[in-house]
Amino acid sequence: MATTSEPSQSEKPKAYKVLGTRPIRHDGTDKVTGRAKYGNDVQLSGMIVGKILRSPHAHAKIRSIDTSKAEAMPGVLAIVTSADFPDLEHKIADLGEGAVDLMYLSENVLAREKVLYHGHAVAAVAAKDAYTAEAALKKIIVDYEVLPAVTWVLDALQPEAPVIHENLKVAGFGQGSDLPKNVAKHLEFEQGNPEEGFVAADLVIEREFKTASVHQGYIEPHTATAHWNQDGRLSIWTSTQGAFTCRQQTAELLQIPVSSVTVYPMEIGGGFGGKITVYLQPVAAMLSRKTGRPVKLTMSRSEVFQGTGPTPGSYIRVKMGATKDGKLTAAEAYLAYDAGAFPGGMIGPGCMCVFSCYEIPHARVVGDDVLLNKPKSSAYRAPGSTQAHFASESVMNELAEQLGIDPFAFRMMNAAKEGTRRVDGPVYPRIGLVETLEALQNSEHYQSSPPSGPHQGRGLACGFWFNGTMKSSAHASVNADGTVHLVEGSTDIGGSRTSLAMQLAETLGISAEDVHPQVADTDSVGYNDVTGGSRVTFATGLAVYKVGLDIQRQMQERAATLWECEPEEINVEEGVYRYADQSLTFKELAGKILAIGDPIVGKASVSPHGSTNGFGAHLVDLEVDPDTGKVKILRYTAVQDAGKAIHPSYVEGQMQGGAVQGIGWALNEAYLFDDEGHLLNPTFLDYRMPTCFDVPRIETIIVEVPNPSHPYGVRGVGETPIVPPPAAIAQAIYQATGVRMQELPMSPPNLWKALKEKASASE
Amino acid sequence: MATTSEPSQSEKPKAYKVLGTRPIRHDGTDKVTGRAKYGNDVQLSGMIVGKILRSPHAHAKIRSIDTSKAEAMPGVLAIVTSADFPDLEHKIADLGEGAVDLMYLSENVLAREKVLYHGHAVAAVAAKDAYTAEAALKKIIVDYEVLPAVTWVLDALQPEAPVIHENLKVAGFGQGSDLPKNVAKHLEFEQGNPEEGFVAADLVIEREFKTASVHQGYIEPHTATAHWNQDGRLSIWTSTQGAFTCRQQTAELLQIPVSSVTVYPMEIGGGFGGKITVYLQPVAAMLSRKTGRPVKLTMSRSEVFQGTGPTPGSYIRVKMGATKDGKLTAAEAYLAYDAGAFPGGMIGPGCMCVFSCYEIPHARVVGDDVLLNKPKSSAYRAPGSTQAHFASESVMNELAEQLGIDPFAFRMMNAAKEGTRRVDGPVYPRIGLVETLEALQNSEHYQSSPPSGPHQGRGLACGFWFNGTMKSSAHASVNADGTVHLVEGSTDIGGSRTSLAMQLAETLGISAEDVHPQVADTDSVGYNDVTGGSRVTFATGLAVYKVGLDIQRQMQERAATLWECEPEEINVEEGVYRYADQSLTFKELAGKILAIGDPIVGKASVSPHGSTNGFGAHLVDLEVDPDTGKVKILRYTAVQDAGKAIHPSYVEGQMQGGAVQGIGWALNEAYLFDDEGHLLNPTFLDYRMPTCFDVPRIETIIVEVPNPSHPYGVRGVGETPIVPPPAAIAQAIYQATGVRMQELPMSPPNLWKALKEKASASE
Repeated sequence: MATTSEPSQSEKPKAYKVLGTRPIRHDGTDKVTGRAKYGNDVQLSGMIVGKILRSPHAHAKIRSIDTSKAEAMPGVLAIVTSADFPDLEHKIADLGEGAVDLMYLSENVLAREKVLYHGHAVAAVAAKDAYTAEAALKKIIVDYEVLPAVTWVLDALQPEAPVIHENLKVAGFGQGSDLPKNVAKHLEFEQGNPEEGFVAADLVIEREFKTASVHQGYIEPHTATAHWNQDGRLSIWTSTQGAFTCRQQTAELLQIPVSSVTVYPMEIGGGFGGKITVYLQPVAAMLSRKTGRPVKLTMSRSEVFQGTGPTPGSYIRVKMGATKDGKLTAAEAYLAYDAGAFPGGMIGPGCMCVFSCYEIPHARVVGDDVLLNKPKSSAYRAPGSTQAHFASESVMNELAEQLGIDPFAFRMMNAAKEGTRRVDGPVYPRIGLVETLEALQNSEHYQSSPPSGPHQGRGLACGFWFNGTMKSSAHASVNADGTVHLVEGSTDIGGSRTSLAMQLAETLGISAEDVHPQVADTDSVGYNDVTGGSRVTFATGLAVYKVGLDIQRQMQERAATLWECEPEEINVEEGVYRYADQSLTFKELAGKILAIGDPIVGKASVSPHGSTNGFGAHLVDLEVDPDTGKVKILRYTAVQDAGKAIHPSYVEGQMQGGAVQGIGWALNEAYLFDDEGHLLNPTFLDYRMPTCFDVPRIETIIVEVPNPSHPYGVRGVGETPIVPPPAAIAQAIYQATGVRMQELPMSPPNLWKALKEKASASE
Repeated sequence: MATTSEPSQSEKPKAYKVLGTRPIRHDGTDKVTGRAKYGNDVQLSGMIVGKILRSPHAHAKIRSIDTSKAEAMPGVLAIVTSADFPDLEHKIADLGEGAVDLMYLSENVLAREKVLYHGHAVAAVAAKDAYTAEAALKKIIVDYEVLPAVTWVLDALQPEAPVIHENLKVAGFGQGSDLPKNVAKHLEFEQGNPEEGFVAADLVIEREFKTASVHQGYIEPHTATAHWNQDGRLSIWTSTQGAFTCRQQTAELLQIPVSSVTVYPMEIGGGFGGKITVYLQPVAAMLSRKTGRPVKLTMSRSEVFQGTGPTPGSYIRVKMGATKDGKLTAAEAYLAYDAGAFPGGMIGPGCMCVFSCYEIPHARVVGDDVLLNKPKSSAYRAPGSTQAHFASESVMNELAEQLGIDPFAFRMMNAAKEGTRRVDGPVYPRIGLVETLEALQNSEHYQSSPPSGPHQGRGLACGFWFNGTMKSSAHASVNADGTVHLVEGSTDIGGSRTSLAMQLAETLGISAEDVHPQVADTDSVGYNDVTGGSRVTFATGLAVYKVGLDIQRQMQERAATLWECEPEEINVEEGVYRYADQSLTFKELAGKILAIGDPIVGKASVSPHGSTNGFGAHLVDLEVDPDTGKVKILRYTAVQDAGKAIHPSYVEGQMQGGAVQGIGWALNEAYLFDDEGHLLNPTFLDYRMPTCFDVPRIETIIVEVPNPSHPYGVRGVGETPIVPPPAAIAQAIYQATGVRMQELPMSPPNLWKALKEKASASE
């Protein structure tokens, strides 16, 4: 059962009419009946099909590409390689979530001099149908000079490692001359004096951790349909987290004005950060330009695994010190993250998150973003934070044990709060970690006895994600029947149409059902950054709130016309407009608008700063099968500060979904490579994600400590819940078996091996 | 050759950068390559086809409709009759151009107790394909009790005439008890003392005129595709002049909230006023509700002629008096216009327009809107004005002749000007009739000798249309590349995307090509009235101008952030933003917006009042073939005050298109009925419209007397040019043959007959 914890009396939330209720989602019918249009549903007259040729090697020079035989095939209409694309200089484009080097982005879309990972796109064919296109791929002759490949981050740091980019020089990415050649970015953060801090500690623990590459695993593969019109205007229908980002990246790679590209964001079957970067869109566009026809490209599942960004695999070393009464004195971490084949990985947030849950006076974090022969790492739900917290929260649990302090109490003693300075600099405003931990403590799950059967254990861990803000625009118009049409540009992945409609409804004093939200294309609405960073309900919500105020002001003006008074004399409360003894509801007033003045349209654009700071704490009970190493989750509770849960069902859904993905990271998921760097398991059969058979119902507790930077107190909620599971599960496994797992995934073979090693060590 | 006349020195127009140029239309490529999507291009998954059963009788009671056999046919999915629609009370809905009685609108969409014209829709079938649907129509058994029909307006006024609506009672339409039973509306306007005015005249002429019903003849038949979703939301893709009007009418007829209907206006293949009222949309919607499938209905050409509104046929009596030195002293007119089968015809504007070109101290106008067994009359380009001006301008020409005054000079002496009061009340602001006549006088055509061959003649006439204003909304967002996406809701019939983009470009100091306009659906943009009344370039243009000011204000704010000054300190001229010694063009500043603040979106809604008053004068040379009565147009010049011609090519196009349609009215077009009221010529073979073989190139002269109520001086231009042709041609025929034609069309048989009568009279 989902419950909501009580906030402290001083922060008693306002009484809302709409916020906190659970209306049926506006797009529900279309999703349920199959009418909703996804990228692959796009059908255009004259449309043809494209397919991508991918590298069979993890690392190789491209000596030549001979497309002549393929081009000669009947039904083949065009072939493109990187030679068809503009030569780009290195240039950092600030495209919302994470800067992107355009030259590297272009090379990732279609390889130039080298292929850098198994599955790297090399060429693309457009043909009358998929069969012809696939047959044509086999006729393209690529002459490769195979090079040694490296797929483990520590190997890539060795002096003898194959060098991924010989002339690595990335504007905006600092690189010391003494760094290993595959380091694309090197970061250092420090506060206080870590050496002194460790001296002050009674107990110091230092451990090493390793995590595998894992994929976002969205159910819908990437798809893009492009039509390059004869007037030079390019239309793209695609599954994307950010229509405007897709627009800008595509325009930059093709060197055409951004305004000549229109991106129509289709419904999206999951993204989790993996559908921000372009892969297919520029290729579909170029095939369309060559053929004059609309071209659709859709990836197979294997192409998704091979060609799109997983989260970084990592090596992390964490050292933490505490006094014997449980006060953290110092912490130090070194993180080496897979960048994949191109610079621009998740090392930054990894470093910033590793100690983000605690007040630590002295700390140092060093990080390397490391190039190797894997697909370029991509954002994946709290990118970089899960790896980091697996390490730091595991050390926290071990410290607590060795100090003889309850792990919950240990966390409460050191929990970050308003005024805590994070190692990378920011000082937290009002945050809700303490309240989150308290809510966990008060939960039925926490209060129940830990499972006491053989090989059973309980584990606890915290997690953090910044939650982004960035830029959003929206507008809305008032209908004569008192409803409002809302137009926004944030692609709806997790129900944001409804969470935005609810905020507008609350602002205007009408019902959620009386707001009709839609996600518009890039021509039709003001600029919006990506749906990512758990920012939409916050930032687009803020825009929508301001749209509401704009509408309300105009409604006051119309009422003033009607009542022959000044707009300021009209009192508005919960959607009722009052002057003297006269009153009209929003609906009644809306019915009179067109008769007495201009139509009413409200609009707003916002660019809030900072983070909304989401903290969570998870509790897990599990049982280990000692004969197989298989872990069975017995009970799982996720607690999180949502600031204000606009639509609690969605917040719970995010918490449950994040927890399940975190459980997948913890117990099963991993990219498997052979020595030549071939990806061995690019299918859902071999790449094992949790199914409903693997997890119990995730219990959720929503904490509401209002975010002071949002009128309704909203914090992002989507990302934080993926962070705690690996460390919580590792702790529970330790409780169950006495084995501290320091490598993900803690899959049956890995755990079985560890159990065996422990058994043989104790023999 | 098109030329532009010089305005008077005092009104020298501002120097514009964009206005008055002729950029390529933004939608040109799609129109030329066939990519533009019209209503019939809509394809939806699961879509089925509907067909309409139409009455074979002009007037009959419906005793019963038996659909059982049709319903039993395989592949027939639903049948609807009026019984499936809500019973509506009489209610006048103010739907933009002309009020509509909803009960009558519903009965016009599908007949209830009686069919009222040949082709009146009776039932509709939805089936898996068109063949099945058509076969099913034949299986529907309608038991009719045929009634006598009346199709000529004077016949319908006779006491013994068949009564169209037994219980005629129309809220808002005055009906005196002593009026004939088929009079749906009776109007009287008077100023001064007409009796005294006629006494003061030296010459009084009174003549009778008759005009036939003519159709707008748009190339694209009506089409509508509807999908009634399971969540109760209705989507309609259709060819319409007003998406919001279509939305409201459909919602009212179906008795569902207006906000639950989304109308997607497709490209439109002509409207001319005939695509404002709904015909197919509610029927497609109901068929969709019954079947759960998207349903497409498309009319054949015969259905367009039979089932959609032509312009009223009319009887007009005009009496005018003048002094011997050419001063008009009094005028009187009686107009009886076809309402068609339902009230709500064009008698109002007919009465208001009949003497609108002249300063007449004493005048009386009486009008009757008359019900008869024809399709309900619809707006058609300057609705009601062409008939009225045919009458009054013909009398003006005859007066001039009998007074021995040049018809041009006679008009100049009496021309309406600023301060002239029209018979229906309004006093003109600054108008351009005098300048228009002067421009005609200065034209090479006017200065050339009239054609002097046998049976050749020259004619002159003036015309007027109010030009509407109504409500418009628009918004626009600034792209990082310095372009602007403009979203507006006025369906683009005559190039308004470009005329609006140009006004925004002028306001912002950028090029027309740097504005990307689109016409949005009813969910995506603020309320907009129909594209009609020649209002869009004026009123939506005004909205777009205000959008530009809104954007400019925000750009100033961003520049102020950049330069650390106050927004008011920034000088903006022709798109360059300046402060102290710093300056940035719009494009340069746009590139910095996202880095320094909120995205920029501008929006505006407007509801201007009044009319923009468009006057025109046409000159025609022609030759009559005395053996056949066929008229050949030798030369034709149209002169018109456009206020400011935003895109002169479009203004010229409107003048040419209007003139050609007026020539069609004058020389050929007519609905032909038999005695039972059957329409005999519902095809383009038998209903003769002018083709390129029938008219020479129409010469155009644009006059620019700025409209004081628009920042760029815009007046509507689309309607006025259809008005002068019949009277000008009648005068030229008189000059050529000595016969004064007082009935339209002056077709070969009619003119031949008149020539014969004249010949036999003079024998």
